[in-house]
Amino acid sequence: MKKFNTSPISGAQELLPEVQASFNQLKTKIADTYKAHGYLEVETPSIERTEILLAKAGGDTEKQIYKVIKTAESAESANQALRFDHTVPLARYIVEHENDLNFPFKVSQIGTNFRGERAQKGRFREFYQCDVDIIGRNSLEIAYDADVISTLLDTFASFELDTPVLARISNRKILAGFIEAHNLTPLTQEISNIIDHAEKVTEEQTKVSLEELELDKPTVKAILNLIELNGSRSHVIAELNNLGIENYLFTAGVNELDQVLYLLESIGLADQITADLKIVRGLDYYTGTVFEFILPEHKNIGSVCGGGRYENLTKHFSEKSFPGVGGSIGLTRLFYVLNEQGLLENKSNDLIDYAIIPVSEHEFDEAMNVAAKLRAKNLSTTVVLTTKKLGDKLTYASKLARFGIVIGESEIGAKTLQAKNFETGDLTEINIEVVSNPEDFWAD
Amino acid sequence: MKKFNTSPISGAQELLPEVQASFNQLKTKIADTYKAHGYLEVETPSIERTEILLAKAGGDTEKQIYKVIKTAESAESANQALRFDHTVPLARYIVEHENDLNFPFKVSQIGTNFRGERAQKGRFREFYQCDVDIIGRNSLEIAYDADVISTLLDTFASFELDTPVLARISNRKILAGFIEAHNLTPLTQEISNIIDHAEKVTEEQTKVSLEELELDKPTVKAILNLIELNGSRSHVIAELNNLGIENYLFTAGVNELDQVLYLLESIGLADQITADLKIVRGLDYYTGTVFEFILPEHKNIGSVCGGGRYENLTKHFSEKSFPGVGGSIGLTRLFYVLNEQGLLENKSNDLIDYAIIPVSEHEFDEAMNVAAKLRAKNLSTTVVLTTKKLGDKLTYASKLARFGIVIGESEIGAKTLQAKNFETGDLTEINIEVVSNPEDFWAD
Repeated sequence: MKKFNTSPISGAQELLPEVQASFNQLKTKIADTYKAHGYLEVETPSIERTEILLAKAGGDTEKQIYKVIKTAESAESANQALRFDHTVPLARYIVEHENDLNFPFKVSQIGTNFRGERAQKGRFREFYQCDVDIIGRNSLEIAYDADVISTLLDTFASFELDTPVLARISNRKILAGFIEAHNLTPLTQEISNIIDHAEKVTEEQTKVSLEELELDKPTVKAILNLIELNGSRSHVIAELNNLGIENYLFTAGVNELDQVLYLLESIGLADQITADLKIVRGLDYYTGTVFEFILPEHKNIGSVCGGGRYENLTKHFSEKSFPGVGGSIGLTRLFYVLNEQGLLENKSNDLIDYAIIPVSEHEFDEAMNVAAKLRAKNLSTTVVLTTKKLGDKLTYASKLARFGIVIGESEIGAKTLQAKNFETGDLTEINIEVVSNPEDFWAD
Repeated sequence: MKKFNTSPISGAQELLPEVQASFNQLKTKIADTYKAHGYLEVETPSIERTEILLAKAGGDTEKQIYKVIKTAESAESANQALRFDHTVPLARYIVEHENDLNFPFKVSQIGTNFRGERAQKGRFREFYQCDVDIIGRNSLEIAYDADVISTLLDTFASFELDTPVLARISNRKILAGFIEAHNLTPLTQEISNIIDHAEKVTEEQTKVSLEELELDKPTVKAILNLIELNGSRSHVIAELNNLGIENYLFTAGVNELDQVLYLLESIGLADQITADLKIVRGLDYYTGTVFEFILPEHKNIGSVCGGGRYENLTKHFSEKSFPGVGGSIGLTRLFYVLNEQGLLENKSNDLIDYAIIPVSEHEFDEAMNVAAKLRAKNLSTTVVLTTKKLGDKLTYASKLARFGIVIGESEIGAKTLQAKNFETGDLTEINIEVVSNPEDFWAD
């Protein structure tokens, strides 16, 4: 019967309404929590000039980018592309609108980004990222790093996942200073790389990789000891100080980490954070605080959120300095893995509160008026306007709504109506002028 | 200082945070109203296979479409493109997921579409469209047309625009039947075109255009009389019946129009609707009910919402029949014109409820704890974590928040705190354990 292949393109998320509702619930919780923490929403266009997106070229970016062309134009003229993250467009936005913004600028961006990655399970080519960033002009206090982390922890708390969330926090200055103190600065990239992969391999393999850099045994041991450090602030900071490393960067990193952890502990988040020197956040542009969130009971998921401090957001676009700190929830992937782990199973999937079912078309208007009264009480309500048999209408309604109200001749103008709970089958009299919550009439 | 041109691409909407907040308010109101009326949200990918988007080719679509290519690929291989509306992807979605959907399927789509139109004032290349549709399988009752129109009227009511909104409603079967009765069927397209443009020209010009089709004078006069018909249901239906046209399509159209208007009147919307035979909705795929919303006090804006009934949504993709009715608010353009008319000026632009201002870093944790308490009361709250002078912090906070609370040494652990209303300068004592609304403490 189909004339076309009607599947969505490969690597795209396309959900049925019930699942979309569950996805949107998470998205709304993210937006609400970001807003509650005073981040201002900003939305940049999906399409940017290619030169903006590739200003900081390298890596897979150029290969994964989607260029866009109007069909009338030839590919050679393509100088626009779809954004692959929120960070580059934000940098452009800050430079463009600098004089109209109030710094430190706490900003959130929730929207889809595009990457032409090889399609595979749990990888998406168009995916939601939900970012918070705080951008300073010339400088930005370290306490803002705690602001970002606490906002993201609050966001995960709003998901009510029935499994703990843990923020693993480190500071890249510690490793950088450590490397400098050991006169290994030329190997910074390589060492960072090995640490970044340490959790995917055995400790022995990490050791071998470090030895392949021709480091002497004590240095290898020192690095292995460093990245094994994790736990509470008091423990980790004391251990770091015990290393006796005299290096400006190292000391600055330890101090910053101490401050961030202290603030997070002071506001009651001690249980949800840990210092962890294994966190380096790849080869990214982070320069200070770095963090990743995991679900400790579902370690195989990996990181569910990450971020950190960057020295200068806009270095490719402006001579001015805009240091920032930010973090991002990759919502499309997160939703996928949470479902895979069954962590969203018990969440409500009710689509609509009420379905009003007129017996015949003579009650269409009355049914629509009853619906309007329920909507005025913030209850989502649909009216079944089909001309099928009552049984068919009830079946249809029961798949959509929590409660059904049948309106026949005798219900016209009635003050009280019978509401059917589609789950239990119970019938209850309700006064539609009063009801303000679908549970109201079960309460008394 | 800039190294790049950092303006957004031409034809894109990019807003400052205050304006974005105002835009998002409208978007939220639309989403909330659609949901309240029982439409289920669906989101399709931005990128579709080109063959899907161009299945119903013709018009400007092919010229305006944005193809996407991964940079690694050559333009010749480009077989994907950005969606230019929500209708085509919805048709694909319905065919793809038919067996998992509950028909009539009331569905909403809110997202951006892409058209490479010539850039001009108030025209956008990426723009939000907010669609509601009701899709039947094989058939769909005419009452659903009233459902869509009443939902959209409710949506405009939620904007609280201080200017009336009027839904102009017609039915294309009336004109089609009229043309058939006059044996002019081969000229249907041309006549529809002329009527569609009638409001942009004088009546004399419309007359001339009709005469150029070599219609005889009585026919021209009859058409001009027909399209002058507008007003209440009773008036317009009576006039249409008085024409004495015996044609099946014409009669069906009059009946459908009557039913739609009757239902809308019965639910208290008589003041917000008018029958209007000038509405034909261009050369679109509509086959029955058609409607456009205008702001009668701001006629120059033109239509702010439109839609109608289509016989078969999926005819290009499937042999099955899915009749539907839908409507769309072009939010990006609407927001632009409402601002241009000053209709959003008096809307609140408060970004955040509270800013907490610690005097020094010794009060950072206390300030963050106070903020958490306010957030628990659904008050958006930011903490000013800069180390600047108190005056500078207050200036910063006053640009963001409605109220400010300074936390110094003596406020640590205090039950009552001084809140400053940044607009009036008034200071009031509040109990942060109790306050649940920023206005609460002005009330008593």
